[in-house]
Order: sequence, then C-alpha cells, then structure tokens
Amino acid sequence: MFQTFEVTARPEQGPPRLAALRDAMKAGGLDGFLVPRADAHQGEYVAAHDERLAWLTGFTGSAGFCAVLHDIAGVFIDGRYRTQVKAQVAEEFTPVPWPDVSLGDWLTEQLPQGGVVGFDPWLHSAGQIETLEKTLKGTGVDLRACDNPVDQIWQDQPAPPVQPAKVHPLEFAGESHADKRQRMARELCDDGQNAALITLPDSLCWLLNIRGADIPRNPIAQGFAVLHDTGAVDLFMAAGKLHEVADHLGAEVTQHDPQALVPFLDGLKGSVRVDKGTVPVVLSRLLGDRAAYAGDPCALPKARKNSAEIEGAAAAHLRDGAAIVEMLAWLDAQPAGALRETQVVGKLEGFRRNDNALQDISFETIAGTGPNGAIMHYRVTEETDSLLEEGQLIVLDSGGQYLDGTTDITRTIAIGLPPREAAEAFTRVLQGMIAMSRLRWPEGLAGRDIEAIGRMPLWLAGQDFDHGLGHGVGAYLSVHEGPQRLSRISHVPLEAGMILSNEPGYYREGAFGIRLENLIVVQEAPALPGGDAHRKMLHWRTLTFAPIDRRLIVTGMLTAVERDWLNAYHAEVAEKIAPRLSPGAKTWLDAATAPI
Amino acid sequence: MFQTFEVTARPEQGPPRLAALRDAMKAGGLDGFLVPRADAHQGEYVAAHDERLAWLTGFTGSAGFCAVLHDIAGVFIDGRYRTQVKAQVAEEFTPVPWPDVSLGDWLTEQLPQGGVVGFDPWLHSAGQIETLEKTLKGTGVDLRACDNPVDQIWQDQPAPPVQPAKVHPLEFAGESHADKRQRMARELCDDGQNAALITLPDSLCWLLNIRGADIPRNPIAQGFAVLHDTGAVDLFMAAGKLHEVADHLGAEVTQHDPQALVPFLDGLKGSVRVDKGTVPVVLSRLLGDRAAYAGDPCALPKARKNSAEIEGAAAAHLRDGAAIVEMLAWLDAQPAGALRETQVVGKLEGFRRNDNALQDISFETIAGTGPNGAIMHYRVTEETDSLLEEGQLIVLDSGGQYLDGTTDITRTIAIGLPPREAAEAFTRVLQGMIAMSRLRWPEGLAGRDIEAIGRMPLWLAGQDFDHGLGHGVGAYLSVHEGPQRLSRISHVPLEAGMILSNEPGYYREGAFGIRLENLIVVQEAPALPGGDAHRKMLHWRTLTFAPIDRRLIVTGMLTAVERDWLNAYHAEVAEKIAPRLSPGAKTWLDAATAPI
Repeated sequence: MFQTFEVTARPEQGPPRLAALRDAMKAGGLDGFLVPRADAHQGEYVAAHDERLAWLTGFTGSAGFCAVLHDIAGVFIDGRYRTQVKAQVAEEFTPVPWPDVSLGDWLTEQLPQGGVVGFDPWLHSAGQIETLEKTLKGTGVDLRACDNPVDQIWQDQPAPPVQPAKVHPLEFAGESHADKRQRMARELCDDGQNAALITLPDSLCWLLNIRGADIPRNPIAQGFAVLHDTGAVDLFMAAGKLHEVADHLGAEVTQHDPQALVPFLDGLKGSVRVDKGTVPVVLSRLLGDRAAYAGDPCALPKARKNSAEIEGAAAAHLRDGAAIVEMLAWLDAQPAGALRETQVVGKLEGFRRNDNALQDISFETIAGTGPNGAIMHYRVTEETDSLLEEGQLIVLDSGGQYLDGTTDITRTIAIGLPPREAAEAFTRVLQGMIAMSRLRWPEGLAGRDIEAIGRMPLWLAGQDFDHGLGHGVGAYLSVHEGPQRLSRISHVPLEAGMILSNEPGYYREGAFGIRLENLIVVQEAPALPGGDAHRKMLHWRTLTFAPIDRRLIVTGMLTAVERDWLNAYHAEVAEKIAPRLSPGAKTWLDAATAPI
Repeated sequence: MFQTFEVTARPEQGPPRLAALRDAMKAGGLDGFLVPRADAHQGEYVAAHDERLAWLTGFTGSAGFCAVLHDIAGVFIDGRYRTQVKAQVAEEFTPVPWPDVSLGDWLTEQLPQGGVVGFDPWLHSAGQIETLEKTLKGTGVDLRACDNPVDQIWQDQPAPPVQPAKVHPLEFAGESHADKRQRMARELCDDGQNAALITLPDSLCWLLNIRGADIPRNPIAQGFAVLHDTGAVDLFMAAGKLHEVADHLGAEVTQHDPQALVPFLDGLKGSVRVDKGTVPVVLSRLLGDRAAYAGDPCALPKARKNSAEIEGAAAAHLRDGAAIVEMLAWLDAQPAGALRETQVVGKLEGFRRNDNALQDISFETIAGTGPNGAIMHYRVTEETDSLLEEGQLIVLDSGGQYLDGTTDITRTIAIGLPPREAAEAFTRVLQGMIAMSRLRWPEGLAGRDIEAIGRMPLWLAGQDFDHGLGHGVGAYLSVHEGPQRLSRISHVPLEAGMILSNEPGYYREGAFGIRLENLIVVQEAPALPGGDAHRKMLHWRTLTFAPIDRRLIVTGMLTAVERDWLNAYHAEVAEKIAPRLSPGAKTWLDAATAPI
C-alpha cells in the first residue's frame, strides 16, 4: 500500500530539537534562522532528507516555514492549515497567519534592535530573498546566507534520494528529447540567451524524457540541468540514478556529479536564463550579471500536451475510472455505520493496484466523511479515522500515476439518505462543473477570465468555496502543474493541450463537504454554423469518466441543457467503463448511469 | 436640438494645414510634432478650442493622435476607427494601426538618423511621456517640450470655453463639498501627502459640487485644483465661470486665475499627490521630487455613489424611460421604408426635451439601421443617413444628462419581420444581459472576474463581441467614468454604489448589429436562507426601465429562469413608466410588456 495512516509528526518532538537548533545558531553567530518547507527544487512534495520543517516543528502541511529566533519561533501557515498547525506543533512554536503577516514585518517587530538572520541559500528562491531584503532594508535586520544548522543537528537525517531514473518512452512522450532540446534551444537563440539553468525536476524530466522516484507521488528525478543554445545539455544528477537512462540520454547530454554544478556555473560564459521565482538564490548570485531573468523555458511547452500525451492521459483515465467504479460499487454495498475512512482509502488503492499499470498514487487520497469532508486538505490518520454514518456525505479525492498519464478525480457520495440542503448544494456544485465543461471561449483568455462560470450557481444561492476552480496537471508528472490554472490569480492564457482540473466544491464547516472533479483538456473548438468565422475559439474535452451520484442531485433544479449534459456524460461513462468492470460493478454502473 | 448631423470635417481641409504646420515646425527646429486628441484634462470630449487633431487631419474620433514628420504624417487610431479614418483624412495622412504599432517604434523607424520631436507638455500625461522616453532611449530621437505650433497656425481657433459654472445642489450631491474636502484631506494625511493636484474636471466638479458647460455632453467646468491636507482648496479657473458659484464655494476655496497655477505649484511646499496617468507632464516636471504618484484621490469616492446620487439616478431613469417608450411607440407606428436614421434621432431627442429636466444628451445618439448597426461607434451624418427598411434591426444607443443623474440606454428594434439568425443572436445577447443582471458575487471581485457571465450565451454559439460588457457612469457627470468597468482589463474591485452599464452586443459586419444596455448599480446583497453567513456578497439593482423588443426574442431558447426575469422586468417597466406616458404610448407599452 502506498498510503499510510500513521501520525508522522508529534508535537513533543519539537522542543528539544528547537533548543538544539538555537545552540547551533548561537555558535554560528545567528539571531535567527529560516526553515522553509521547500527543497532546492521548490516542489510541492519533498524527499525525507528535506523534511526539515516537519522534523523541527511537527507541522506536515505542504506549504509554510518557520522563523526561529532565540526567544520565539514563528510557524507561518496559510488559511488551509490554521487548524492543523495547532494540533501538530508544541506551544514553544507560535503559529503566524500568513500571508496576512509578512515575514519581513514579523522579523522587524521581533528584532527591534536588529540582528542577523541566517538562511540556507539553496532552499530560497532569488525572488523570495529579493522581496525579503527590500522589506528589511534600513531596519537593522540583516539576512545572511549560511550552511544549514538543521542539517548539523539532525543526527539521523535520511540521505538525499538516489532512486534510479527510467526512460519515459517516446510512445508516451510524443516528442524525442533531441527534438525538445532543439526546440527549446531555438527559443533561447530568439531571446538572445546562451543557456538556461533548469532547476525544476519536472521541467528537467520533461525535457529529457526521463522519470524518477526520488520523492513520493511525483515520478521525478531530482537534479539540475544547463540547456545550451546548441541544444546540448549538461546534467547534474547523482550517477546512481543514471544507469538505466545513459544510452537514452546520448552524446548531447553530458552527465556530471551534482557537486560539479557550482564550479560549472562559475565558469559558464554568456547570458543564462533563470526563473527568479524558483532558482535557488545561491545560483543566481553566482551568475550575477550573467543571469537573464525570464520564466522556465520548459514551463509552457510542458503544459501544452501533444497528442500522444493527451491520448495517454485519456487511456489512463479509463483504467482509473474502472477502479473508481469498482470502489463505488463496493462502497454502495456496505451498510451505513460499518466502514471507516481508512478502509475506503485502502479499498480504492487496492482497486487501482489490481491493474498492474499503477506506478503510484498521485497524492494522498482525501477521504473525508461528514464534518471531515469540510476540511479541504484532509488527510485521514489513525487518530481522525471516522465511521461513514447514515446521512453523511463522503468526499473522495484521489488519483493515480500511470506511465501514460496522471489522474485526479473527486466524487462525493451519499451514505444513506442525504440532507436536503446538502443535496441542493451538491446540485449547484454539479451545475458549476457542467457550466465549465460545456464552455467554449475565444482564444487568449486566462483562467481568471472564465473561472466565475464554475461558481455562478453557488453565488446565486449566496454560497461559494475558498479554493481555485482548477489546477494544471502533468503528463505522468506532478498532479499540480503550472502555469495554467482555473483561478482568480491566473493570468496565463489557456492554450490547446493544457490539462486542468474542473473541481467546484462547497464546504459547511462542522457539517459536510462536497467536491466534484473531472480533468479536462483544452482543445481548438470546431466552427459552428452561424458562429463568427474569424474568431478562433477553444473548448474542453473531458478525460475523467466515472458516475456522479444521482442520489445527491435535485433533478428539478437542473435546466434541460444541464440534464442533457449529465445524461450524455453518464452514457459515455457506461460505454467506456463498463467493458472493464467485474460483473457486479457492471450491474451497479448500469443503474448509476441511468438517465435522470 | 443638441445633436447635429453635418459632416464636421472633410479630407480636403487637411493638406494645406499640414503644410503650414510643417513650416512652423521647421521654424522651430523640429523634425516632428505630436498632435494628440486630448486636452490638458485628458477627457473623452474636448472643447472646440482643443479640437486640434480634427482641425489638422479631419479625423473626428474620440481617441487617436497624429505624429507629423516632414515627409510623413501618421494618424494613429485603434480598431474602432479603422474604417472611419479612411473616409475622413486625405491621402497626405497615413493611418497607423494602434496600439499594434507603438509610437516609439514608428518614430524610430521613420527617423533612422534620429531627430527632434516636439510635443505640447500640457496635452500629454507624465505617464505617456515617460513610456515614450523609455522606448526612444538610445535611438537618437529626442523628445522636446515646446509651445504648440498648431495654435500658432490655427487662425480662427475658438477661444477656450468660459461657460458659467453652477451649483450642484446638496439634494443631488448627497454630501457637502466641505465634507468631501475633509474626507479627502484625511486620506491625504493618512498617506503622508501635503496636497493633491486635481487635473480632471469631473473630479474637481464632484469635489466642489459644481457643474459646468465647457464642453458638449459633459456638464463639467474645466480647471485645476490643489486640495490641501487641511481640506482647503486653491481653485484655478477663469473668473468668468465662477460668478454663480462664489458663495457656494465659500472661504475655504480660494479662486485664482488659471495663469497662476504654474507659479503657485512652483512655490508649493511638501509632497503633492498627482496621478501619473493624467497629470500634464509640464506640471509633474514642475513638481519634480515633490510629486507623489498615486491615483486621483477623488476617483474612487466619486465612483461609489451615495444614496442621494443613486436615488437621483433612479428618478432620472424613469423620466428618460418614458421618453424612450414614447419614441418606441411612435417608431412602431411608422411603416418600414418610411423613416431615416436622423428622423429617429430627432424624434428621440424631442421626446427627451419634452421634459424640461433634460440638460443635454449625454453623448451623440447612435442610430444605426441594418449594416450601420454593425458599426459600434456609428454617428449618423447627412451622408450616411439610411432608410429603416423591412427586415432590418436598428440599434439605438442614447442617453440624457439630468440634474439628478446621467442615463445611457441601448435598445435594438425590429423593423418588420427580423431574419431568424438575427433573432437568435438577439436572444443570446439578451441572455447575457439577464445573466449579468441576476448575478450575485462575493465582495472583492473586479470587472474582469465576472465579465464572462455576460458573454457565455454568445460564446456557446461560437459568437462574441469586441467591446467591453460595461463602463462606469457618473452622477450628472461623464457617461464614461472610471475606474469601475465590466471589462477584461479592469482589476478594480466592484463596490457598493458604483453605477455601470450592462451592454452585451453582437455585430455581423455588413448585415446587422445588436446591442442591449441597462444601467445597473452595485449593492450589498441581503443574506439568503442557506447562504454562507460569513460571506459578504454584492448584487445589482437595475436603473433602466424600458421594454426589450419581444419580436426579436426566440422564446424557446430561454430557460424558465430567464423568462421569469424578463416578465418580471417588463412588469416593473409597465408599473413604473406607464403613469408617465401619453395614452397612445401607454396602450403600446401594455402590449410591449405583456408576459411571454
């Protein structure tokens, strides 16, 4: 089983470690030290070696940081984690609401006489440090790059990961790494740059058509790369990872030990493209005037999936949909009050593993019943594991990593008879999902320009939800991939081939949660009779096929168009998924996808 | 009659004036000179004195500029005016698509050896010149502020306007100018500014509760003001305008001749808030280091209408709605093929003038039948005046200036039996208008975040329109008022009291045009049972009441909710407007507002 339910961090571990860290800070002449969640690659998940924040504080959320001073240690967490942090950290740590309180302002207030605050320059981006330095200018608080004292005191720190990388076959990648390198190189030439420093592992893996297993849930191999304007690449990755991919990488990709990166960059001539938001500040400082700040050159090409990637994703979703349906059929056969959340997670992972294609789950399954469903980033543990009881809704948000694609699906299921107000809210969430699924829009718009379409049915009832409507998804890569988003903060135009989630929700604190999620891919929309001939428009193709719980739909609230969409979707689910099912699940699916 | 139909500029006027300007440029040592449409107050309309662009080139659009060099004269115009400019300027002028081609790039290309390009520093904002200087840096093209050579050669240039200003009564303004000045002064104190320079006449008129008649269609008095952090104001306005308002302005508003502005600013101490986007660069340069760049302090307070302004607008709209209905009833009684566009404009203005409250029309009425309706900024002249023929649609976009409010309404009317595809597009436009009218949304969103709601019905049919969904509207001030907009480019959060237009449209070039427009005002939405108690939401109150042509609605395309909205709206139109009508129009309205 990939997922585990143990409580991985406990409040009592923190205080002695904090004391040790303060001793190390004292020895280093530091009045403060910053402990971020991030590693040198700024990803959402980190290897055990890099779990410094959780090791020190007990806090295991996927975003946040700790600012340790000698008399206070602030744990900065955003709105998602305000409840979780209280349960996970000892009272020696002070939760700080972030970004409401900025780190710069907090440091200035806590260190009125000024002082020296250390940071590990591998773990902070150039952009972060630039912003922080601006805020601290003239306050007497000095930032100092230094060796990481957490690594000094962490006796049993796991080693950095050295899992073997594997070739990502052309059949799934759709474009050879030679072609990708040449394409990116032409872009560098056009922009007058001699090279690009690539620090994000998913960009690196995409560029070289390799995958790895360095961190859980994301099939990436950690490393750095320099792409030259000739298309040649210098790759800085532990030799232990490269045995299986050496031939595949070929002569134009030169392998180096990670330790060689700094001297290599030191000697590199010309203009080097780096992404200020993600490059470790130690590297941008090393480049100095040679750094040309611009986005990661792989970000947009990676986001625009080619037809092999799209068809791969479609195939992965059929496989994944069959597992979901088997689980839903099994779940429906259990009486209310008989199951716990962990059993549902286990069963779902089991159905996914029955197909040998599953490489990993794409994130920790969220299975929250009743009030737990209202916690947006709920991860069930032995301590919170709850019974699925009569009248509850359970939110099931899960996904799989397959060689041909990454999936992410949410369904909300009624246990017994749902309360009327939950069914009404569910119907509005469904209406928002349908409205976005049906949309067609003129080329050039960003997520911000169309996100409202998926929220309007809730808004009209005075309701809303506090997360984005959707995120980008990788092709057998990160389940959260930028830059495309269906979100108020996304200004990147949507382009054909981008895969996103469409996941409206509704959360009634202490009572119930609702979320529905399909993955959808942007396509050029065919011309319509009577439509504007000169206007290029885009629309969605749906990738996810699994039934939507009809017992939670208040049919009378749907328009004819919405009902037609749902019935057509369910007919397609039945057609595509039924042939892959066990006889019992097939019978269940027939009923679950009957027209309403 | 306010509106006239003569052709106000002719291509043949341009060439001799261009020759004279080039002589003046030569005498002044200039290789080029910029002639903007704007005056020193950067408004959409300008006084006859400031019609330099139209006088020189013949082009009468409301946006654009001419860059005159010795061997080429580029007329820069945006997409709205590409057809119009060709008809209005002689071949000695070269239309340049703008902003596709930037002025800086064009100058660099036309003056490869470099040269001196003059500009009148009263007519360009600090922001414009800063941007242009950045583009021209290192190109050898130098910008030089100078006296305006157009004014030197324009023999019969009309004098600057000196129309008397009038008091805008407290009954309509809702807040005394003393209170407004104190409120703005507190904001200056909070921001650490000693004064604000106010250069926009509508801000100045709003702040001092005065109105004027310096330019057509906008009841403003042109001038400049310095608001001090004490709440005192120094007003720079021709004495001839101030007779009727001297007592009203009182002791805290000191009157100066406009000529005194420069020496006054020269001697002013402390930090002076100016809006970089609108302040004449001559004034920001004079202030130098004392200039504190921030938005016009009046812009947002002016946009958030108080209850007196909202109720005033509502009253003005009932008066205006009655005139519209009288005109529609009259129009319906005429046979197809019998009327011309100018007759409709004249009749409409006549019905508006029948009520003595009309001060002016709020812009030139757009009355475009058949293909003319597809020209978004069509202004009918003697030359284009067309017959309203069987099977056509006529777009009527008009408004009035009343002491209690500014109106702006568009209706599209069928002449005889409309073509099916026009009726279908009309129905989609109506569906977009209804969707926006019904919207309720969480506080904090800007126009960009919700504009898609009003376009979606067209998008789904592969159609769209190339203007914003809505613009801000003033309170007996400009019919186009910022900063609020329902537009993809608007990032300013919508707030209670802001009045906007809701005007989706559809344009089939060479065939027909459709636009529907109501004014709507943002209000706090009352809580709904079952809604999120912690979420503050906003919604619209509709101000415009006039029937929507039922003959153009394909009833079967509407949802039940849309039909209910339309019938409820028509019932309210009948209830509010019928008591104000002539007997014949009342009978007509009964039929026009019958439920569908």
